[in-house]
Amino acid sequence: MEKVVIAGGGLCGALLGGVLAKEGYQIHLLEKRSDLRKGPAERGRSINLALSSRGIEALKLVGMDQAIKDLSIPMPVRALHQKDGTINEVPYSGRPGEYINSISRTGLNALLLDQLESFPNVVTQFESPVTAVDFTSSRVNYQSKGVNHSSNYDFLFGTDGAASAVRKSLYDIPYFSHTFSQDFLDYGYKELSIDPADNDGFRILKNALHIWPRGHLMMIALPNLDGSFTVTLFLPMHGKDSFEAIDRGAGIKAYFNEHFKGAENYFDDLEGQYAANPIGYLGTIRCTPWSVSGNVLLMGDAAHAIVPFYGQGMNAAFEDVHVLHRIMKENGGLNNTSMTIFDQTRKADCNAIAELAIDNFYEMRDHTANPVFLKKRAIETQLEKMYPDYFSKYSMVTFRPDMPYSIAMSLGRKQDAWLMQFASSQGAATYDLHQVYTDLKKFMAE
Amino acid sequence: MEKVVIAGGGLCGALLGGVLAKEGYQIHLLEKRSDLRKGPAERGRSINLALSSRGIEALKLVGMDQAIKDLSIPMPVRALHQKDGTINEVPYSGRPGEYINSISRTGLNALLLDQLESFPNVVTQFESPVTAVDFTSSRVNYQSKGVNHSSNYDFLFGTDGAASAVRKSLYDIPYFSHTFSQDFLDYGYKELSIDPADNDGFRILKNALHIWPRGHLMMIALPNLDGSFTVTLFLPMHGKDSFEAIDRGAGIKAYFNEHFKGAENYFDDLEGQYAANPIGYLGTIRCTPWSVSGNVLLMGDAAHAIVPFYGQGMNAAFEDVHVLHRIMKENGGLNNTSMTIFDQTRKADCNAIAELAIDNFYEMRDHTANPVFLKKRAIETQLEKMYPDYFSKYSMVTFRPDMPYSIAMSLGRKQDAWLMQFASSQGAATYDLHQVYTDLKKFMAE
Repeated sequence: MEKVVIAGGGLCGALLGGVLAKEGYQIHLLEKRSDLRKGPAERGRSINLALSSRGIEALKLVGMDQAIKDLSIPMPVRALHQKDGTINEVPYSGRPGEYINSISRTGLNALLLDQLESFPNVVTQFESPVTAVDFTSSRVNYQSKGVNHSSNYDFLFGTDGAASAVRKSLYDIPYFSHTFSQDFLDYGYKELSIDPADNDGFRILKNALHIWPRGHLMMIALPNLDGSFTVTLFLPMHGKDSFEAIDRGAGIKAYFNEHFKGAENYFDDLEGQYAANPIGYLGTIRCTPWSVSGNVLLMGDAAHAIVPFYGQGMNAAFEDVHVLHRIMKENGGLNNTSMTIFDQTRKADCNAIAELAIDNFYEMRDHTANPVFLKKRAIETQLEKMYPDYFSKYSMVTFRPDMPYSIAMSLGRKQDAWLMQFASSQGAATYDLHQVYTDLKKFMAE
Repeated sequence: MEKVVIAGGGLCGALLGGVLAKEGYQIHLLEKRSDLRKGPAERGRSINLALSSRGIEALKLVGMDQAIKDLSIPMPVRALHQKDGTINEVPYSGRPGEYINSISRTGLNALLLDQLESFPNVVTQFESPVTAVDFTSSRVNYQSKGVNHSSNYDFLFGTDGAASAVRKSLYDIPYFSHTFSQDFLDYGYKELSIDPADNDGFRILKNALHIWPRGHLMMIALPNLDGSFTVTLFLPMHGKDSFEAIDRGAGIKAYFNEHFKGAENYFDDLEGQYAANPIGYLGTIRCTPWSVSGNVLLMGDAAHAIVPFYGQGMNAAFEDVHVLHRIMKENGGLNNTSMTIFDQTRKADCNAIAELAIDNFYEMRDHTANPVFLKKRAIETQLEKMYPDYFSKYSMVTFRPDMPYSIAMSLGRKQDAWLMQFASSQGAATYDLHQVYTDLKKFMAE
């Protein structure tokens, strides 16, 4: 039985382990953190995420697509909280089955680890950080309870996140050709929490992803099963209306009063929460290669960390596993060929979702408060309702797992340019939906 | 007096130190190696280099352009040793004053260090490797005789070469946006030596850069003042006719017999030399940014290591100093503005010479044995003889310090395409030189 070492037991590593265990590989999973099923949630890591079709398709590989429904809250609309207090509900799609899901990161990860450990050919070790990899002798060095150990491998996966130790070891090989870039936005994020309502209900609309778009800053909220919401503030790190400015100025209450008037009432102890939670950074990581020697592969955030604004970080990581599984089926399992094909063919799609995620930061911040954008979205919703073959860029990215991210990006951008032009030129006039559909279709075929 | 710490006392750091000392800055230069003026030459590092106009212009800043003439051997031609034993002498330029110079790395570096230490406001320390930089408190940590020290700075320069410790510290700053790439050719190099002739003369033509072009492999030789030549073998690392194949096969003598027949007679103890000298790697390093905080700057190989095939690595590093000096004059000395301008404006030229150097690897290996290429070079030599405003790509890169590398690249590539087409279509026919000049000029103006 060939032995696979997986460094990193987060979402990507835990799913990958299950998929490979099912295929008959012997799995040794190493995770540097403690077992998240046995302790309190870690502070300041995003505690819920938006699961959508690409992720769900991948979860089907281990039969988990049904189990996760119990952990999820469907979010069919964006609820846009405008500065004057009005709320626009903008559907993510014109079709009823197309919605995104708010899901607990810890709950989902725990389910995946339980499922992984249900295989007899699996060993998991927590509090066991990888310290180095010897690629020549195919051994992973790690620590456990302060003692150095090593584990040999036939195949090694680095699913150990944006600060990947496997990637670091790989790129530290002398004279190893590679590229690496990390780009941080001049924005940070801080998580806050809205408690459940007194009757265990939800203080704001349950089935929605809430956005308070304010041009150069933004707040969002996703619902949790217990009636609470996880709120994320996205602010500039420096300068006007930044985290720095809050600390120098009159504090978070005054800041809410200026930018999110009314929303402060949803929070218990806003000031205490603000003081207690750390500021997170928003970075994109791109690198090549992801594979070496035909038996080592980086996946998920270790290979392509992205900003969270398309809700696709986890979905892209799960899709990595799905894509690898398909390539394995076509090439006789795990081997040099499948790893090389994955490295060469998957990159374009991960680069595309990285770009789209940064684009969506500006869309969420700026455009969702823009009447032309709202009109364009209204037209798209109508098109999706009436025409089964019409998909907005958002729908292609989010609800079309059959369409690679890179295709969704190029088609979506072309379509968006036409629609924004149409929505902007068309003013308050009514329009003939079928004419729009026909003209747009013709434009897209050019 | 503002204090400048220079990490790295190689060619670039030593010249930079002299230029800044002359401008009145207090200089503290740290070099990890021992003082090269006090010991035997380090094995396996290229011991002579091709100095040309860009480097010479920079050396004028410290009045060293005359002093280095005594260390140099002019090389006005490439001597191409074809496989059948014929030798083509191909001038680098059609103009008499335009030639490159073979110069001793150690001799030049020693001169620059002597010159640097002649200023009272300079401290140099050898065997003192930088271990880390604290960019927040503006301090450089280094070791000396096994003891940790630190030196505060107003300005810090990383001129510590391709494996720069300053660059490493910079890119290890948490959440610091940057890109880094290193690309190694699948070729290595090994240095050998041809001893002087018995009468202290030269065994092969003195005033030439010798090339044995063999398609997928190549050997070159540059003359030294003592009558010896430094020879460099550039071979594939793996596969056919590679370093590996020599070790697996019948050894270096048989290899010479196959590829460089006749040349083996120039060497005393070819086998001993081959066994004793290490294989070097050929890499290109690109990275951004080169500056941070307005008081730290990477220069030379630390910022932009290139392969040696255009003979421009040292010249580009010296030109860095020249460019910085010009920017300082225009912007009130060393400050945030000058460092930022250097970072933003110098990169395009360093990227261009990196590309050109890789191109020239293929030109030297393949084209110099190609009759169309030789014909094209003959036409260019004629053009340069007759028309003062005509410059080949090689001449623009090598003899036009007034022309940025990026311009030389774009003009040169356009011109080359036209000339190769002309030389190839024109066959054995004679041509009207003035017509060529006129047609080419018209094409270039389009």
